[in-house]
Amino acid sequence: MTRIALGLEYDGRAFHGWQRQKDLSSVQAALEDALTQIADHPLGVLCAGRTDTGVHASAQVVHFDTSASRPLTAWVRGVNALLPPSVAVLWAKEVNAQFHARYSAYRRRYRYWLVNRPQRPGLLAGRVGWFHAPLALDAMRAAAQCLVGEHDFSAFRAAGCQAKSPVKLLTRAEIRQAHHATGVVFAFDFEASAFLHHMVRNLVGSLVYVGKGAWSPEHLREVLASRNRALAAPTFPPDGLYFQGPVYDPALAIPEIVAEIPDFQLFPV
Amino acid sequence: MTRIALGLEYDGRAFHGWQRQKDLSSVQAALEDALTQIADHPLGVLCAGRTDTGVHASAQVVHFDTSASRPLTAWVRGVNALLPPSVAVLWAKEVNAQFHARYSAYRRRYRYWLVNRPQRPGLLAGRVGWFHAPLALDAMRAAAQCLVGEHDFSAFRAAGCQAKSPVKLLTRAEIRQAHHATGVVFAFDFEASAFLHHMVRNLVGSLVYVGKGAWSPEHLREVLASRNRALAAPTFPPDGLYFQGPVYDPALAIPEIVAEIPDFQLFPV
Repeated sequence: MTRIALGLEYDGRAFHGWQRQKDLSSVQAALEDALTQIADHPLGVLCAGRTDTGVHASAQVVHFDTSASRPLTAWVRGVNALLPPSVAVLWAKEVNAQFHARYSAYRRRYRYWLVNRPQRPGLLAGRVGWFHAPLALDAMRAAAQCLVGEHDFSAFRAAGCQAKSPVKLLTRAEIRQAHHATGVVFAFDFEASAFLHHMVRNLVGSLVYVGKGAWSPEHLREVLASRNRALAAPTFPPDGLYFQGPVYDPALAIPEIVAEIPDFQLFPV
Repeated sequence: MTRIALGLEYDGRAFHGWQRQKDLSSVQAALEDALTQIADHPLGVLCAGRTDTGVHASAQVVHFDTSASRPLTAWVRGVNALLPPSVAVLWAKEVNAQFHARYSAYRRRYRYWLVNRPQRPGLLAGRVGWFHAPLALDAMRAAAQCLVGEHDFSAFRAAGCQAKSPVKLLTRAEIRQAHHATGVVFAFDFEASAFLHHMVRNLVGSLVYVGKGAWSPEHLREVLASRNRALAAPTFPPDGLYFQGPVYDPALAIPEIVAEIPDFQLFPV
């Protein structure tokens, strides 16, 4: 048996989330069906981070085992020819049997894109979150800093979350802002050992409460310390959430795609 | 009667083009239906530039006449509440009876986004064009320069084009390139007095022929001079095409939104 790792990207609107479900389209089912055709035997994939309905991925990583011997291009170009348009394999790599897409990852990255203007998005509907009233960058940045470190994130945990522990190490909570012709865009970047269910969307919801002035940055610290979900703000929609992939030991030489599109200000307007 | 101008953006994948057609969804029908509800009388809109199925707009402009007296916010927020998610009104302005969304415009702008990498797009499916083999920026830029000026663009005109004349003044043909984690992205910017049907998609198809080395930049000049559609390259798909709006006399004070997506940053990933 050979173990293969794949990197893929998808538009979450086209699927009912990552996980295979009866009678509903899922990224997992689409990918397993395509891989099974290439391998000519049934196979199952394991992913680095499951995503909910409507959540996108720019750098999901999966692994699978196969008895088929195929050139790596078959696992990229061949599989892409069989996948629906909204999902594409970006790379394939043979890995050793100790590699596990989920358990070998020691960090995960998420980005939330938020359009901040009076009018709701049209062109980017389903691709960005939206808030209509002005948001204060400095207040949100100050609040985000209290989240960094090892904390019990129960206040930002969905009811159905199956994580063994609510204690996670958040290593990055960074907010950037760009101005464009129709308003302001924010990018919220998070990196952590692992995330609880809905954690990023709950954090963004609460940071928006700070940004609009309903809460002080200090209040977010109190919400975190309370470990009480009822005290946090409502969950933000999935539209703006992008799984940017896992981080592995560099010795594993897993390709890293930090972002399909790079930094702000690449080109002047 | 009051004449109102509106600016709007839309994701072309959600509609069978701009123009109202029997039994097919269109941006025009969606907008007229929503406006009619707000005005409480039937009304029709005229747009600055019709778009085909799958072509997006970041700054379409329309006008309509109404006997209803409404605050401008009703034509923005009120209408947005009634429109499908993939189209949004960005601004509304009362204009005088001489203003015409189409005839008052003396320039139009289009941008074509092209992802250049071995793997087809997944996350941005339907939002960008794609070419798999490397494209030479310098050759494409050299070729684009021969397009600027007043020319007979018959070589890049669709068979069904209804323009009175194939002679148009192209005032801008600019190509920019950005590198990102998964490959290269090109933005092709065109501005002209008016465009023939499929003109931008045909120009991009021929510039890609230059970029991949099948044609010299000089050959594109010959294709242009031939006025023979059969000598030009195939039409590129609508996916990467964005109507960036008309240009009016500044004295009219029509809001200008150069681009909802001014930079690569606004393709959220």
